[in-house]
Amino acid sequence: MTDSVLVEVLRGDVVESVHRGCVAVVDADGGTVLEIGDIERPVFPRSAVKAIQALPLVETGAADAYGFKDKELALACASHSGEAAHVELASAMLAKAGLDVGALECGAHWPTSQQATVKLAGSGGSPTALHNNCSGKHSGFLCACCHSGIDHHGYVKAGHECQKMVCEALEGVTGARHGADNRGTDGCSIPTYAVPLKNVARGFARMATGIGLAPARARAAKRLMEACMAEPFYVAGSGRADTKLMEAAPGQIFVKIGAEGVFCAALPELGLGIALKCDDGAGRAAEVMVAAVLAKLLANDAALAGQLTGFANPMLRNWNGIEVGRLRPSAALTSANALSAVAPIPTFS
Amino acid sequence: MTDSVLVEVLRGDVVESVHRGCVAVVDADGGTVLEIGDIERPVFPRSAVKAIQALPLVETGAADAYGFKDKELALACASHSGEAAHVELASAMLAKAGLDVGALECGAHWPTSQQATVKLAGSGGSPTALHNNCSGKHSGFLCACCHSGIDHHGYVKAGHECQKMVCEALEGVTGARHGADNRGTDGCSIPTYAVPLKNVARGFARMATGIGLAPARARAAKRLMEACMAEPFYVAGSGRADTKLMEAAPGQIFVKIGAEGVFCAALPELGLGIALKCDDGAGRAAEVMVAAVLAKLLANDAALAGQLTGFANPMLRNWNGIEVGRLRPSAALTSANALSAVAPIPTFS
Repeated sequence: MTDSVLVEVLRGDVVESVHRGCVAVVDADGGTVLEIGDIERPVFPRSAVKAIQALPLVETGAADAYGFKDKELALACASHSGEAAHVELASAMLAKAGLDVGALECGAHWPTSQQATVKLAGSGGSPTALHNNCSGKHSGFLCACCHSGIDHHGYVKAGHECQKMVCEALEGVTGARHGADNRGTDGCSIPTYAVPLKNVARGFARMATGIGLAPARARAAKRLMEACMAEPFYVAGSGRADTKLMEAAPGQIFVKIGAEGVFCAALPELGLGIALKCDDGAGRAAEVMVAAVLAKLLANDAALAGQLTGFANPMLRNWNGIEVGRLRPSAALTSANALSAVAPIPTFS
Repeated sequence: MTDSVLVEVLRGDVVESVHRGCVAVVDADGGTVLEIGDIERPVFPRSAVKAIQALPLVETGAADAYGFKDKELALACASHSGEAAHVELASAMLAKAGLDVGALECGAHWPTSQQATVKLAGSGGSPTALHNNCSGKHSGFLCACCHSGIDHHGYVKAGHECQKMVCEALEGVTGARHGADNRGTDGCSIPTYAVPLKNVARGFARMATGIGLAPARARAAKRLMEACMAEPFYVAGSGRADTKLMEAAPGQIFVKIGAEGVFCAALPELGLGIALKCDDGAGRAAEVMVAAVLAKLLANDAALAGQLTGFANPMLRNWNGIEVGRLRPSAALTSANALSAVAPIPTFS
């Protein structure tokens, strides 16, 4: 099966490049609300499921024991830009558990934000594992280990108690099997599992509503989702799509990007989870796709939908600031209709 | 028509992302030697045709008047990484024409090489138009203007005498019409024209052989192609695909990447031109595609073909240096057969 073109890249009025992909919008009971492409095909959700991977941090009681509030929880769910505030907070989280940067096993890289890289280099600095975009997640892992009395060394390995807890959370929330045969290694060295897109979407519907989750897990999920929506800068960073989309409708939209063109999202008030993958792995296309899907689902709020449609149609400017092209959702994406009516549901309490 | 998947991205043993595309390998008479996908479809070749765009620099006599050798000519055909040697040479080229960075109309950006960015920022510097990856091409444009007595101001505009010369060279070499209706604006503000991939490939067969070109143009083309193959660092930079591919077989392989997944290449001894486009614009896929096609066409040289096959199958390592995946050409790409025998032809003199 060939996925449809969902995003077009124009130079002037000519389509220069195209991106294909698939989209799943699902409710917490697994009912499909919108389906584009093969949503049963396994995909690696990569960093888009960090909020699920952060459940043990809350469920073990570590987050409470260390006094973590929204910012810390948002950073534990983040692919951050390596800006100073991100780095400092990750370091502070580790300190609460009596640890420092030396405990991180994610590897070091220059900040994903070029501005942050220039600032760091300009001050004579060099990157550490704290600048790794996953350092907040890893700090959360380490805190969960320390609070639970688990030796943290090797916490990134599939066989370590830490990743066993994370794997159990992923399986429980998505309802998909996570085993050695569908396991790969992520950029930060932890396992990532290829599971059907539909399951990932359902997982975020559950995270956003609590439906289908045990009470303690539902509370932990609610706390993490609300933390991300309350502190969107700590989930990504200055100018990033995740941050801007969540800032557009505080408390209404949760989004999280993953590597290789993945985006997950949730609309708590509508009880919906969203997962999508751009086939070629392009983040620029995944951003257009998620914004277009959100605009479609939130069409009842004309002002918000208009803003989201703007995010879905970004201009391309060259080094002189001249407008040279744009990205746009394709007709296949904009004309895709929801399979069932989308209406607010009672939110879980 | 849907192009085939030509490149697969694996994480572990699972295909995580795929890239589609089309490939044209053509001789100087326009005979198609290898065809994958729709090679009549217009594409913007972007920076991949810089060697053709540099013809006026040589044909006007400017290159000789200013004493330009291989390095300067290679830089005029380059999308360089903004390393110190690139920046200094572009500046020296401008100085020969009595100009400086202020004459460049390409805009400024941090070096495309992160290492060069870190070095520049670390020394307290900030980027100028000399760091723009196109500064060598623009320096060549300015030199052609100054030597020809053309007022250089506004040399990036389609209606300027400079771009008229460039457009005439592109039309003459590719045999495709370059007009207002197929024109877009490139990242560096000059026009770029969407023309059939087959014409671009034929253009590089002509550039590499001189066949079908007037004698003076054939000499200029030979000089530019040989300069790039002699000084591949100045065409791209440290660790870049263009540089490594040309270093692998000095004088036998010419390659040049363009934005949005384009690669052009030529094999002078075989009299062949190559043009390819990854549909989604991914440079990583275009690099795999060009290496795989070159390996196929140069299969008679087992050692070289093996090296090229290595380039076509790069490993992916994460921030800890762990191998997490790889890219590979798809069966559709590796099994595509040449339509006619590939054998050395007499090179032009």
